[in-house]
Amino acid sequence: MKQPGGKPVSRAELIEQYNSVRIFTEELCKPLENEDFVIQSMPDVSPTKWHLAHTAWFFETFLLKPELADYKSPNEQYNYLFNSYYNAIGQQYPRPQRGLLSRPTVAEVFDYRRHVDQEMLRLLESLDQQHLDKLAAFIVLGLNHEQQHQELMLTDLKHVLFQNPLYPAYMSQQDVAKSKPVSALNWIAYPGGQTDIGFAETGFAFDNETPQHQVLTQAFKLANRLTTNGEYLAFIEAGGYTQSQLWLSDGWALINRESWKAPLYWVKQAKQWFEFTLSGLHPLDLNAPVAHISFYEADAYANWSDARLATEFEWEQAAQGLSIEGNFVETQKFQPTALLENNGNKPQQMYGDVWEWTRSPYGPYPGFKAATGAVGEYNGKFMSSQIVLKGGSCVSSTNHLRSTYRNFFYPHSRWQFMGLRLAKDVNY
Amino acid sequence: MKQPGGKPVSRAELIEQYNSVRIFTEELCKPLENEDFVIQSMPDVSPTKWHLAHTAWFFETFLLKPELADYKSPNEQYNYLFNSYYNAIGQQYPRPQRGLLSRPTVAEVFDYRRHVDQEMLRLLESLDQQHLDKLAAFIVLGLNHEQQHQELMLTDLKHVLFQNPLYPAYMSQQDVAKSKPVSALNWIAYPGGQTDIGFAETGFAFDNETPQHQVLTQAFKLANRLTTNGEYLAFIEAGGYTQSQLWLSDGWALINRESWKAPLYWVKQAKQWFEFTLSGLHPLDLNAPVAHISFYEADAYANWSDARLATEFEWEQAAQGLSIEGNFVETQKFQPTALLENNGNKPQQMYGDVWEWTRSPYGPYPGFKAATGAVGEYNGKFMSSQIVLKGGSCVSSTNHLRSTYRNFFYPHSRWQFMGLRLAKDVNY
Amino acid sequence: MKQPGGKPVSRAELIEQYNSVRIFTEELCKPLENEDFVIQSMPDVSPTKWHLAHTAWFFETFLLKPELADYKSPNEQYNYLFNSYYNAIGQQYPRPQRGLLSRPTVAEVFDYRRHVDQEMLRLLESLDQQHLDKLAAFIVLGLNHEQQHQELMLTDLKHVLFQNPLYPAYMSQQDVAKSKPVSALNWIAYPGGQTDIGFAETGFAFDNETPQHQVLTQAFKLANRLTTNGEYLAFIEAGGYTQSQLWLSDGWALINRESWKAPLYWVKQAKQWFEFTLSGLHPLDLNAPVAHISFYEADAYANWSDARLATEFEWEQAAQGLSIEGNFVETQKFQPTALLENNGNKPQQMYGDVWEWTRSPYGPYPGFKAATGAVGEYNGKFMSSQIVLKGGSCVSSTNHLRSTYRNFFYPHSRWQFMGLRLAKDVNY
Amino acid sequence: MKQPGGKPVSRAELIEQYNSVRIFTEELCKPLENEDFVIQSMPDVSPTKWHLAHTAWFFETFLLKPELADYKSPNEQYNYLFNSYYNAIGQQYPRPQRGLLSRPTVAEVFDYRRHVDQEMLRLLESLDQQHLDKLAAFIVLGLNHEQQHQELMLTDLKHVLFQNPLYPAYMSQQDVAKSKPVSALNWIAYPGGQTDIGFAETGFAFDNETPQHQVLTQAFKLANRLTTNGEYLAFIEAGGYTQSQLWLSDGWALINRESWKAPLYWVKQAKQWFEFTLSGLHPLDLNAPVAHISFYEADAYANWSDARLATEFEWEQAAQGLSIEGNFVETQKFQPTALLENNGNKPQQMYGDVWEWTRSPYGPYPGFKAATGAVGEYNGKFMSSQIVLKGGSCVSSTNHLRSTYRNFFYPHSRWQFMGLRLAKDVNY
Repeated sequence: MKQPGGKPVSRAELIEQYNSVRIFTEELCKPLENEDFVIQSMPDVSPTKWHLAHTAWFFETFLLKPELADYKSPNEQYNYLFNSYYNAIGQQYPRPQRGLLSRPTVAEVFDYRRHVDQEMLRLLESLDQQHLDKLAAFIVLGLNHEQQHQELMLTDLKHVLFQNPLYPAYMSQQDVAKSKPVSALNWIAYPGGQTDIGFAETGFAFDNETPQHQVLTQAFKLANRLTTNGEYLAFIEAGGYTQSQLWLSDGWALINRESWKAPLYWVKQAKQWFEFTLSGLHPLDLNAPVAHISFYEADAYANWSDARLATEFEWEQAAQGLSIEGNFVETQKFQPTALLENNGNKPQQMYGDVWEWTRSPYGPYPGFKAATGAVGEYNGKFMSSQIVLKGGSCVSSTNHLRSTYRNFFYPHSRWQFMGLRLAKDVNY
Repeated sequence: MKQPGGKPVSRAELIEQYNSVRIFTEELCKPLENEDFVIQSMPDVSPTKWHLAHTAWFFETFLLKPELADYKSPNEQYNYLFNSYYNAIGQQYPRPQRGLLSRPTVAEVFDYRRHVDQEMLRLLESLDQQHLDKLAAFIVLGLNHEQQHQELMLTDLKHVLFQNPLYPAYMSQQDVAKSKPVSALNWIAYPGGQTDIGFAETGFAFDNETPQHQVLTQAFKLANRLTTNGEYLAFIEAGGYTQSQLWLSDGWALINRESWKAPLYWVKQAKQWFEFTLSGLHPLDLNAPVAHISFYEADAYANWSDARLATEFEWEQAAQGLSIEGNFVETQKFQPTALLENNGNKPQQMYGDVWEWTRSPYGPYPGFKAATGAVGEYNGKFMSSQIVLKGGSCVSSTNHLRSTYRNFFYPHSRWQFMGLRLAKDVNY
Repeated sequence: MKQPGGKPVSRAELIEQYNSVRIFTEELCKPLENEDFVIQSMPDVSPTKWHLAHTAWFFETFLLKPELADYKSPNEQYNYLFNSYYNAIGQQYPRPQRGLLSRPTVAEVFDYRRHVDQEMLRLLESLDQQHLDKLAAFIVLGLNHEQQHQELMLTDLKHVLFQNPLYPAYMSQQDVAKSKPVSALNWIAYPGGQTDIGFAETGFAFDNETPQHQVLTQAFKLANRLTTNGEYLAFIEAGGYTQSQLWLSDGWALINRESWKAPLYWVKQAKQWFEFTLSGLHPLDLNAPVAHISFYEADAYANWSDARLATEFEWEQAAQGLSIEGNFVETQKFQPTALLENNGNKPQQMYGDVWEWTRSPYGPYPGFKAATGAVGEYNGKFMSSQIVLKGGSCVSSTNHLRSTYRNFFYPHSRWQFMGLRLAKDVNY
Repeated sequence: MKQPGGKPVSRAELIEQYNSVRIFTEELCKPLENEDFVIQSMPDVSPTKWHLAHTAWFFETFLLKPELADYKSPNEQYNYLFNSYYNAIGQQYPRPQRGLLSRPTVAEVFDYRRHVDQEMLRLLESLDQQHLDKLAAFIVLGLNHEQQHQELMLTDLKHVLFQNPLYPAYMSQQDVAKSKPVSALNWIAYPGGQTDIGFAETGFAFDNETPQHQVLTQAFKLANRLTTNGEYLAFIEAGGYTQSQLWLSDGWALINRESWKAPLYWVKQAKQWFEFTLSGLHPLDLNAPVAHISFYEADAYANWSDARLATEFEWEQAAQGLSIEGNFVETQKFQPTALLENNGNKPQQMYGDVWEWTRSPYGPYPGFKAATGAVGEYNGKFMSSQIVLKGGSCVSSTNHLRSTYRNFFYPHSRWQFMGLRLAKDVNY
């Protein structure tokens, strides 16, 4: 494991990163009531308590048990309860029933984390350098895994709180400065051609970003910014949800079956649109990026706009060389926000705010091999029927993202912070 | 409202009863972890927290709001969240989603109860005698309602804890004295004939126990005691669950669809049978009454035994004049227990341990009229497709029961403490 | 087997009855297109082809195979395909998939019937008198069974044709004389008291009508005629389907889940009500008895009318001694019809037109024992969660009915010709 | 519309093609019993009768109604009944209920086809040349559409007949010559590089094959032949269906939920494997290509074989220039057959026998635009969550296929003749 600069990751750095990520997970829990930790509002959502335990289980399973000879788990059944989907590790407590577990209690789960942290530090301090170098990749994988769950904790919690007609807030209302109108969308042209796609740097990346390979793209244009709530509202008001010709067949069936008429979390009260956020219900900010839409909705909006979504390769080309700036979890807004400054000549909001739906199904890169052993189940086995999203969201960690990062969800999913940026053909 | 003796219920008595029932509800919660209050393990089950709030809501809705002019609810939406099924009161939060509510928190729910209790006492102390006499029936209804929910809290909690592979216990293991073998079952003969059925005393009864009327029964015999786990196990081992001819058609479909092979809460580990109880997993007590069986299982067992279940009228005839003694919630065993002393000549275990399935569908007595207003929804609207159970269980309150009491559940239900007593024809 | 007069049933009579019933089944099929025989529109419905084969299978299974040593079935798998629900006979082809069988073809099924008929006649002619006496009851059971399936063929076919937006007719439109308005409903009083209930005559009855026993009823009143479409329409227009307080809880859930707003087969086109019949779509006849309503609808209508449904015992008391007259299958109307002559002083339409929902759950009479062997599955195993209906319908055979006859369906069922007659308490 | 040679399609040619395709559809129906036309065995399957009517509807809707001023449909409701999924045309009778329609009868459907054919010929003969040139593309689209439905008629019918425990045969058993063992699989290497993908010839192609564009592939190897039943059986016997690590996550969930343990139509009787075919049940031919497997099964088999599936681009590269030879519908085997002659040096069985699963999700080519109007719904709206299959099957028409043809099905589908050919990376 090497740092981006090429230097091996040092013991001190690893420990510092470990502590920093682990502590941040728990900081995110501070505003919660004990009862909030328990609930699972749909099979895709896990209780906060479960996320806390599962991320500890990850270190226990992939590092402490194999590497610390005298390691003892506080409860051997945690291996069953908190295994998410690693068949090579063993059977799993059924995912849709995670919300039926009152025990271990929240306090016991925090104790479990304490235990794992102490043992991880013991491990990290006791390893010789050679061993440390060998394990660094696993540790960094565990930390990236935990960052993903930090994001899921917030998106899942948002879904949980939304089920409650009291519309409880995770955090007290922000002092919301009135957002400024965004300028009309501008198109930025890219020449296309053969480009390197995928990760080949030093530092950490997931296996699904490799191997780096060449992809041929045609010339294309990309919107300079994300699509806003205001623009999406125009689509709704123009009857977008009632015009079958805008929709993929599966999407049309879905929105009719589920009676979807707007993004998730949009609530209409007395003819006014509100949006449920982690700080409760607020009037819809028309200048903020639209969020919580499915791939089908993003695609239908693009059709209505006489445009399309970008491929993951186009997006990655456009992102190459851009610095990773934006509205991330560190801003503690936990909500996409309007552009402060409009700049039509360069791509803005490429990172942060919302994950951007591409039109690319999630699949293996040429020559992709999943890692051997249980961690090989991390990404590879999900390579069917899902769609790639790029960029990162307002609840992603800055240092978790890069241009080659491939997030993926089913096309019907919309409980993540998901939005869209338009793209266009040049030659057709 | 008159006491059984015929005297009007006094203000002091009412207050004492009110306090006593309300405090007992909360005492039952003492062993719980905060997380245990939140979970709903199936649509029939409600979270403990919901029971606590709903029973407060009942007094708020039927007494405080109509009778206390200046009453103010802590939260107007509680009327939506904690209305169970009273359409006349308004819409209800969907029953299967009660486990999705983290707020109000457990502490807030207890505060709600505090608030209602204070206001109820203010009401009870401020009413003039005439008003008090008029409202006494509602208050006693509210207390009987709360006693029913005390029972549900325990049966629901048992179901919740059972979902957890850790098999957590509600209470620490009792010091289980080894039970004594029960004698062979004895038959007690009853002549049948015209009998008064239903309630016509002073004191409280539910509307579904009235009006008292005459029913004609044929001569019959009743088992002197409940069927035991040991006897039921013999039925299982004789292939009872594999012989279609023993089963009602709906029951046969059910046990095959659900792969039922034993009562709920029976767990086979390494060829030995265990039973999950509120004090955790224990070896099956062969002498204790069988519990947690559906009507279909009770009926199939009776067929296999060349007997049948009693009608509710037969049971009530047999119970007339018996004192209400048995293993109730006050014994704090929370589990059916073996007979201490066998007496073949008189009916034993008629009250307590388990509710006894009858063969009588739950319907209106001749001339039955539901109460007017929302409380009329309490019993009458459930008079289809359910079956009457008699007697009371190990989690019923002694003073809640009487021979005319009609409990009712769907024939597939088995998460209550439900068991059976055999009956037989004499003349056929 | 004795005739109602007490004489044994003769060979010639048996053969004549056999031929007559069997031929009538096939006559009912004359108007059908080949394609109509194949379709199953819901699990409760069977394809006509299946009814034709199953009724042959019944004679094959219960008479030919056990009694004719050299009997050979045309296809041994018919025993699997055409067994309805007799577990003692063997496994059954899944009921909901009966509409997936294109083979045997319609012609092959008629061949199967031919084969069974020839062999049945061979059997009937070859039996000595003693054997004949012994088997007569089974043969008559088989014929009553076939009469039930004649009724089901028509009700199932009506349901099948109704799925088709072309609204095809089974028979050409009748020359419908305009019906006359019916007089206001009159109440006929009955004293109640101890009455013999159940069958104890000579002749045929199903096991569920026995043993005869005494039942005690209270004084009651019965409507002199069936409730009409016009009266039921008034209930609809008064908002009957929107007032929860009129409905049993299960019924309220059902009509909301299924969006029921009128009886099955009522179709509203351009603000006018039509009714789908076996001769196609016709304007609703306001004077004809309402049909195709569930128990829940019948019960809600009765509540709205400040009345109730009769118990099966009340109905049977009222019917004792009445002659079996009415609109039956022999009139070939296949549709309930308005009273020709109103007579408020005696019960009219007690037989024919529609089966009348009672308020009595279907259960065993005191001392009921199902027959031994597979035919014991005919009635007994269905004695849970169903409701008794009395009287017979416009598609029942006259000679199939009697006052003790107990038909039964689930309370949600309404594809049979089911209607209602109001009843009232006298003393309450 | 031009012929492959570049000449415009002549009136005589069009009429000849029209007659030839339409007649062949009806010839495929010759072996059917009337009852076989009616049945829908699952929502994906349509009754034969429906296919016959829908393909007539296609010409009626897209040619006769817009182009023949005096055209009159035999029944205006056919437009509702036989519209498959063209929202721009109007509402559709619900797809899962196509098996509930007994009318129009089979004879009436053939009459409908007669009517459409006569009118189509009238149209074709009456058009002036300019108009004819304009409409030729629609007519050829209609014929290709009909060829697709010819294939579906056979695959759907196979599924229908398989539901029947009598295992009826569509056609009498072929004189099956014993197949010869196939040689071990050989790998053929391809260099990869930039290749033209998609259709740019004269003649007919679907819109989803356009526009032609360049794709960059890496060097790869392709198996010289299809995977056989024998090879697939080895995978089963090695526990392939029980090893989670071989499966995509969605596939693993699917095979466990559905208890899949072998391809569809494989039947194990007394420890021997049989395969249901359109000529009934036969012992499994180990040398024939495996068929009726889902994408998940194809992918798992490839993983087990340390190989992978080809991308659609790799397959198309390999197929460029190969002649379209193989086991097609014209051979009337209606079943994949073993190679007659093994030739390891060139790709065999590229066309016919079974559609080959690729690993490519079905999506739009760069610059793809769906046709305007209702025919634009033909292909474009299905571009999510499906997988591309290449080559054609034993029930495809020879003249319907080409290297650029993109068939597509959901990854769980397996009722089509679907199989696999292995591929491998070269550089990884």
